[in-house]
Order: sequence, then C-alpha cells, then structure tokens
Amino acid sequence: MIRVGILGIGTVGTSVARILEENSDIIEARAGKKIVVKTGIVKDTTKDRGVSIALSDDPSTVIDDPEIDIVVELMGGVEAPYALVKRALKNGKPVVTANKALLAYHRYELQALAGEIPFMYEASTAGGIPIIGALRNGLSANHIESIKGIMNGTCNYMLTKMINEGADYDEILKEAQDLGYAEADPTFDVGGFDAAHKLLILASIAYGIDAKPEDIVIEGIENITQTDVTFAKEFGYEIKLLGIAKKVEEGVELRVHATMIPSESMIAKVDGVMNAVTVVGDCVGETMYYGAGAGGDATASAVIADIIDIVRGNHGPMLGYKKGLESGLKLLHKDEIVSQYYLRLEVNDQSGVLAAIASTLGRFGISIESMLQKPSKNEERAKLLFTTHCCAEIKMRDAIDALSELDDVHGEIAMMRIEK
Amino acid sequence: MIRVGILGIGTVGTSVARILEENSDIIEARAGKKIVVKTGIVKDTTKDRGVSIALSDDPSTVIDDPEIDIVVELMGGVEAPYALVKRALKNGKPVVTANKALLAYHRYELQALAGEIPFMYEASTAGGIPIIGALRNGLSANHIESIKGIMNGTCNYMLTKMINEGADYDEILKEAQDLGYAEADPTFDVGGFDAAHKLLILASIAYGIDAKPEDIVIEGIENITQTDVTFAKEFGYEIKLLGIAKKVEEGVELRVHATMIPSESMIAKVDGVMNAVTVVGDCVGETMYYGAGAGGDATASAVIADIIDIVRGNHGPMLGYKKGLESGLKLLHKDEIVSQYYLRLEVNDQSGVLAAIASTLGRFGISIESMLQKPSKNEERAKLLFTTHCCAEIKMRDAIDALSELDDVHGEIAMMRIEK
Repeated sequence: MIRVGILGIGTVGTSVARILEENSDIIEARAGKKIVVKTGIVKDTTKDRGVSIALSDDPSTVIDDPEIDIVVELMGGVEAPYALVKRALKNGKPVVTANKALLAYHRYELQALAGEIPFMYEASTAGGIPIIGALRNGLSANHIESIKGIMNGTCNYMLTKMINEGADYDEILKEAQDLGYAEADPTFDVGGFDAAHKLLILASIAYGIDAKPEDIVIEGIENITQTDVTFAKEFGYEIKLLGIAKKVEEGVELRVHATMIPSESMIAKVDGVMNAVTVVGDCVGETMYYGAGAGGDATASAVIADIIDIVRGNHGPMLGYKKGLESGLKLLHKDEIVSQYYLRLEVNDQSGVLAAIASTLGRFGISIESMLQKPSKNEERAKLLFTTHCCAEIKMRDAIDALSELDDVHGEIAMMRIEK
Repeated sequence: MIRVGILGIGTVGTSVARILEENSDIIEARAGKKIVVKTGIVKDTTKDRGVSIALSDDPSTVIDDPEIDIVVELMGGVEAPYALVKRALKNGKPVVTANKALLAYHRYELQALAGEIPFMYEASTAGGIPIIGALRNGLSANHIESIKGIMNGTCNYMLTKMINEGADYDEILKEAQDLGYAEADPTFDVGGFDAAHKLLILASIAYGIDAKPEDIVIEGIENITQTDVTFAKEFGYEIKLLGIAKKVEEGVELRVHATMIPSESMIAKVDGVMNAVTVVGDCVGETMYYGAGAGGDATASAVIADIIDIVRGNHGPMLGYKKGLESGLKLLHKDEIVSQYYLRLEVNDQSGVLAAIASTLGRFGISIESMLQKPSKNEERAKLLFTTHCCAEIKMRDAIDALSELDDVHGEIAMMRIEK
C-alpha cells in the first residue's frame, strides 16, 4: 500500500482524494499497489471538505511522517510551498505538484535538490492534458522547433465569446467572473502571467532554458476590441492568447501575447475554456494535445497519473535531461524577436495620412502587407488597420513611438503579433 | 553507451538509424547515454540504405549478440517477427517495435513472456503521436469512457479529398496510389484492417480486452459516394474512418467503420493524412492527440522515444496493468452494438414508397430521425437518404434485409453509423 499526504485540500485536493477512492479498482490494477491518502493539510481543519481523510493544520504531519510515501503539493503560492517541498525532498520523499508558479521560479533548484528522487508536475501545465509526458518522453528524439499553446482557459473562453458573439471585452469579463472562469482580480489570467508560468516549464523540457517570468515578453488580452476581431475575421485569422517557445538561429524566443493565427490551423479551432498545445519536432512534424486545462477532476487526473508513475517506477528525468545540454541555447532578448505585426491606429480622415504612416514605417525598414480602413465613431477620423511583413520587435516599438508623434494619429496605437 | 540492433532497415529503420546519428546531441543529453545502432538486419545486404551501419542478413547477429542492449523490430508481418522477438526476450533483451499486426495478434503472449523486461510499442499506433504513453501513463487515473481515432492516413486523405473537392472514390484512390499514400492493393488501408490493429492495441490499455481482429466489426470506406458526402454536409456531419472503443453498460464495443460525426467536434476538423485520437476519461473529460500517423521520420520519433525511455529506466507496464484487471469488462457482441444509422436507398419515385419503408423499419422498432430525397440518374427512381434514431446493430441488419426485399427498392442499401 502507498500512502499519500496532500498539502492543500482545495478544489484539486478534494478531487484527488475522491478519485483515488472512487477509481481505486482501476488505479490499483494499473499501479500494482493500493494508493490511499493518509493525511491532508489545511488551514482550517473544522471546515468540511466532503472527503473522508484525516486533516491536520501542521504540514510536518505529512512531511515528517515516515509512513507517508509520496507528498502531493497543491497549496499554490511560491515561497511557502517551496520551503515545504524542499523539506519533503530532504526526507527522501517523492513529490508531485500542480503548482506552476513554484516551478516558474524554482524548477532548477528543485531539480538539483531532487536528484534521483522523483519530482513530478504533469498537472502544472494545461491541467489534464498529459503534455509534460508527451514532451519529456514521447517527443524526446526531436529537436523541438516550436511550442505554441493555448494554456489559459479564461482567456480562450473570453476570446471565443468576443469572436463568435461579437461581445465586448468588459461585458465578457463580467460574464466569465459570474461563471467562476475568471477571478475578481483577473490580471493573473487576462494579463498572460498564468500562461507564462506554464510556458517556462515547457521551455525547460524542450530547450533546457532557465528563464524567469521577468525575463520574457508577457502581454494579455485586455486591449483587444471588436475592431480587431472584425479585421481578423476578414483576413482569415483567429485571435488566441498563445504561449510561444520557438528556436531561431540566434536562440530561443519565449513570449506570451494575443496572437493572430490562420483560421485553418488546428490550434485556431480550439474554442471555449479548452486548452491545446502544438509541438513541432524536427522528426515528428506538428503534433497537438487538446483537453481541459483546469477544473478539479481534470487536474487531479494528472496529479494521480504522476503518483501512479512513481509507484510503477517510471519518472523523469525531472526537466527532461539526464545530462547537461551542451547545445547552449540562449534566451533571445525581447528586442530581437522577429514577427509579423498587426497595428490599429485612429487617424484623421484626410488625404496624405496614409502616405505619412507608410513613410514613417519605411524609415524603420517596415513594409505593409495588407490594409483595411474602417469608419470611426468620430466622423472626422478613420480607423486604420494593417499588417506588416516581418521585422524585429525593437524596430516595431520604435516605429510605434514615431507613429504616435504624428499629428494625424490620435490615442494609443494597438499592436498584435501574427504567427503563421 | 547503448547498442541497438534493428530487425528491418526499410523506410522507418533508415530513419531510426539516421536520426539517432543526426540528433545524437539531444538524445544523449535526454537519455544520459550515447545510443548507437550496432547492426541492422536486411534481406539484401548489398542494397545501399543510405546509412552507415553494419548490415547482416542473419537475425542472430542481433538477437544473440551479447553486446546488443535493445532489439528494435521493424520487419512487418506477424509470425516471423513474433519468433524473433520471443528469442530476444528469452535472451533478456528489451524490445521496441512499430509492428501493429504483431501486437494485434500476440500482445498478451508477449506481455506474459516479457514480464519485467521492457517491451515498448509507441510507434505501432498513430505513428509519431505519443498516444500509447498518454493512455498508459498520462490518463492512468481514469476509467476510459471512449476512444475514437482517425488512425489511417490513407483513408483520411481520401475522405478529405472526396469532401473538399467533390472527387469520386476511384479517382482519389488512384491519386493516393500515385502519391504513395495507398498501396497497389489498398485493402489493408481502405478496408479498415490497419485501423483495427491499432484500435485493439489501445483497447487493451484502456480496458484490458484481449480481442483479435476477427472478433470485431471492421468495415472500410469503399462504398462511400458523393451522394453520402452531400448528405453529410447538408446535415452538419463530416465522414471519417474511425476506430471506436467504448464502454457501455454491458461491456466494451470495438469497431472500425466509416462514421458520420458532427462537423463541430474537434476530431471532425482533422484533415488530410493526419491522424488524431480522442480519449474521454471519467476524470479528465475529452482529450485529443493529433499528428502524423505515418512516415519514416515521424514513426522513428516514436521508436527512439521508446529506446530513450528504456535507457532512462521508464517503461510499462506493457499493456498498462501491473495486476489483472478485476472489472472483467467483456467485448460486446457485434449484434448488440447500439448506434444511430444513416441509410441510402435507390427507390421507385412513386407515392407510397416512403410509407412502405418507414413501416418496414417500424417492424424492427427503428424510427427515422431525418430524411432527404435526391434525384437519381434513372429518372423513374429517386435516392432516399435518412438517419435513424438509436437501435441495435442486429435490428438494423435485419431491417436492411427486409428493405432489400421490397419491390420498390433497387440495388444495395448503403449504411453508415453516426457518432455524436
């Protein structure tokens, strides 16, 4: 019999405890041993969690209990779980976590500390989708060319609604909050930070890149309007919040931002709260993994799969490498990222304006690919929407600054990147 | 250093040898050891394979060589590789195979013989997509509710062309043969047998079902016409050759056949030679795995992933169970499968015919869900296309026999199943 201790009995912890009991027949047959939860750690032991496990408010009753074989960390946060998980590893206990923030900041320290002790985290990225296993094991023969993931269900739900129902951002955000898909303070989701944590985990397995959230481009969906949606439809794009990791000659790009992608690509077809990650490998070509990225039971599915793998004797290497990776791939500086861009400007509806804009862009070596002019609410102005050919991020940012200074351009210039 | 011997240096074997060399940097970093091919077994050692490995026509030089650590079987066929793989296991050598036919017939004997020796077969099903790993490891906490897979690229290519370009079956088959997507004798692909082998492998991991190809429904795409395609479009369906494994109250359904599926489902969006498998688990909900189902490099990606997992110490249990599965799920008899159906009949274009058909169906307890009448080439006749509500397969087959005997019905009645 394998005894599990769980740090944090919230939505996911409750699901883990319940499924280990309800599916114990199949789990025992697959793992070869019965797996039970011995202790759950909570702040308030008097609150009913709907599961029949022993509760304690003292993490030591899990971490220091010699009868506990595996520690499952489902607390959330960064430094508090980090301290506890380190203690568990020091006691020689395998760890399973669903905590993306912990890994976004401390995955390499944890790898060093774990050594040969299993440290598993399938549930940290894209919930129930077994993307960690796919990338670490299933695609291990490949140089990974790119990863593009819809890894935040809140954003994908909101974008799908904006596109399919023509609703405005604020309206949809309120609806998502009412449905429990978005938090009262939605910044962590809609600002791209949640997706960034997940992207960093995948990038470590693919490229051995040790980056922190502060090091990469993170933008959200807050500035997308129905004007952008209309343009995207007209030009054959969908708009998705993507986490992108991509190998280019000079290094690895890591970035999270709203992206226009061709409507016919598989990942463009992923709607609502669902998540999906496409991985392109040099041998396998494009693969995609699709499923529920959140929710108690779906996340618990991944947590328990990790527990079963540990019991079976299958695990790791934690971040995918048994040895140091000699290729020495470096994180590309934000400024050097090359992309196509979409721009939205409010301009005076006068002759000569377009020429001024094109010539300003030209000064930075940027050329226009396609253009659309739409009427504005203000009759004397027009909305100018266009896409550019590829250029470096730094050029685009300088060009946007220069455009903003033109007398005929009003308000903020909206920018979105395009991936083909 | 790990030394591999390969039985069969065809398209996949060549790719395995080449990628092990070309990607040796990343493979060594991930596996922790250098992996090299020591010997390849071929019938004709004089033919150039474009790879610099030692060739032999004697399988013993791989199987009985104490320096060979892992045997990779890429011969194809059933009994010949079975004999060799058994010898390799008796010599204590881990085996990696891409051979679906071998597993469709002998997976349980091989599991018993392998015991604790790694026996891996990721490449046998859906080529480069890591579906075996996803099902055996990633979803191991779940009771599997259903598996639906597009697992034959030839059929999916042909169906996509028929649907998108309005081409006829024979025309597209010839094109697929010219492109190398279909064999000169295409029966194994278009008749559904290839997909059936793969389905049986997945069904073992999901349900512990020991069935042979002879035990299950296997139908192909040979009888699909543009009339069926038009109907499907009009009623919001795509037509796909699906391998379906599904748990119902009485047992497990296993079947391969052309299927009408709602256009908005994710798997309906998988076009061309690509493969995809959806798996619904009771905790995780619907997940989907998408990628290249064939091709030398994509298949080699899966073969090498298995080799790396063996070197890392991760493997199995071969068919997903460490212990016997007590649930005792039984294969449902073909007759008992319950489905919705689509029927196409050529009938006399006269009043009363529809009433006769509806009343014949009624005698078998079958009711019509939707109907479409189309003109026929023969002006005195019409094509009658309809879908039924759910009924058992045996009732439907009896009803089709009875319909065939009606004076107003001409020629063969075409039938297709519908999955929602």
